[in-house]
Amino acid sequence: MNVAGQTGTRYRAVIEYDGTAYFGFQRQVPEQPTIQGQIERALQQIAHRPVTITGAGRTDSGVHALGQVISFDLAWRHGPAALLRAMNANLPPDIAILVLDEAPPAFHPRYDARRRTYHYYIYNRPLRSPLRRQTSWHVVHPLNVDTMNQAAEVLVGVHDFATFGQPPKGENSVRQVFLAHWQPRNEFLVFTIEANAFLYRMVRSLVGSMKAVGDGSWTVSAFVAALQARDRRQAGDTAPPHGLYLVSITYDDAETR
Amino acid sequence: MNVAGQTGTRYRAVIEYDGTAYFGFQRQVPEQPTIQGQIERALQQIAHRPVTITGAGRTDSGVHALGQVISFDLAWRHGPAALLRAMNANLPPDIAILVLDEAPPAFHPRYDARRRTYHYYIYNRPLRSPLRRQTSWHVVHPLNVDTMNQAAEVLVGVHDFATFGQPPKGENSVRQVFLAHWQPRNEFLVFTIEANAFLYRMVRSLVGSMKAVGDGSWTVSAFVAALQARDRRQAGDTAPPHGLYLVSITYDDAETR
Repeated sequence: MNVAGQTGTRYRAVIEYDGTAYFGFQRQVPEQPTIQGQIERALQQIAHRPVTITGAGRTDSGVHALGQVISFDLAWRHGPAALLRAMNANLPPDIAILVLDEAPPAFHPRYDARRRTYHYYIYNRPLRSPLRRQTSWHVVHPLNVDTMNQAAEVLVGVHDFATFGQPPKGENSVRQVFLAHWQPRNEFLVFTIEANAFLYRMVRSLVGSMKAVGDGSWTVSAFVAALQARDRRQAGDTAPPHGLYLVSITYDDAETR
Repeated sequence: MNVAGQTGTRYRAVIEYDGTAYFGFQRQVPEQPTIQGQIERALQQIAHRPVTITGAGRTDSGVHALGQVISFDLAWRHGPAALLRAMNANLPPDIAILVLDEAPPAFHPRYDARRRTYHYYIYNRPLRSPLRRQTSWHVVHPLNVDTMNQAAEVLVGVHDFATFGQPPKGENSVRQVFLAHWQPRNEFLVFTIEANAFLYRMVRSLVGSMKAVGDGSWTVSAFVAALQARDRRQAGDTAPPHGLYLVSITYDDAETR
């Protein structure tokens, strides 16, 4: 059956997921469950034919999202509200569609994104927490939030972040950071970073090096020198994925959360 | 080998757990994992003989704890700090010992408890949340926190709570509630209740009926009448277990959190 031309309307959806059980966002081999794979499976059950989705950010295995954005084309006659309900009814409990609306035919969730915001949660107590184990990084050593914020301040502006991640093929490693700071919240230290775009592994790499500043194994100057080196080998350890959340993405017409 | 007399010191421990994967606190048949079973397994690995623990509260399947209290007797020569580390090293990631100290030989976590505090989290938004699905009850209908607090106020004082739960064998169903209120916190409604003791299923039964008040299907007067009826059949639906947390227990010498 030739289904060319039946692509229908372009939709934009905001999704939340618990990344614990998944091999990241991007579809891979069928045996490895992914966010993309689950959403495409749900859409296929609704549309009775394969539907491919595009995501704004390719979150790693174990990374969570409160405001990931996807797009897809679908011929659907019952309105966006019914489509949202149908998708949620066909998705597993750890993935949910929060918002769904029609988008312009040329809308692209990655290329059209203006700003993305991530959070990283460090649980900074001597003993591990069973209830926070899948949603934060447990750091035993007390961290100095002041020096970590001195390091975070340096990130704001336009910089070549080659030390802290790899660009997609054909892109350079210059990014503009609008906001970067650490905030204590109960037993957590919460890092917020907003940028026009991010390199692959950039937030986790930054967090790992700022954690080294916070525990005293790096000075703020060492952190600045690492940034200026533009050399991936100068980065500290990469923070684990389960403390990271893709929080929101801003487009010209909307912010997703 | 006769191990009588080798009971050693009585220890008191405060524990946190994610109840998602367990058939409640209390040890049951071996095929059903329980919190008690996991802690006793860890102690057996440390002591090389069976150790039985006693818990302050028998939390149901799926209920969480931030400050459950247990006691056990053990001959151990390396001090409480080393015992805490050894236990945590032998426990799975969803159970942790937070505090451990020596207790008087007659200490009993349930009989000696003066006050217990529970929290119940309702996630009150139209759409389900993947990241909160195991730690809160998703209620779609917008709830009226004012009428729910009118119902909660009625609970404070000494009452016969027979409508809202069953007492342990040989006990009556009169309990003293010191504090009971609902508080909005972001997208959650958080119920806090502190009492000298609770009947079996009491918090979940109260929450289920107060939720009926909040969604308008019960009046506050109907809630009061149900309380006064002292009749289990007059209770509303029981709220699900995964929104419930045993937060802390107060003893004459200490509060556990």
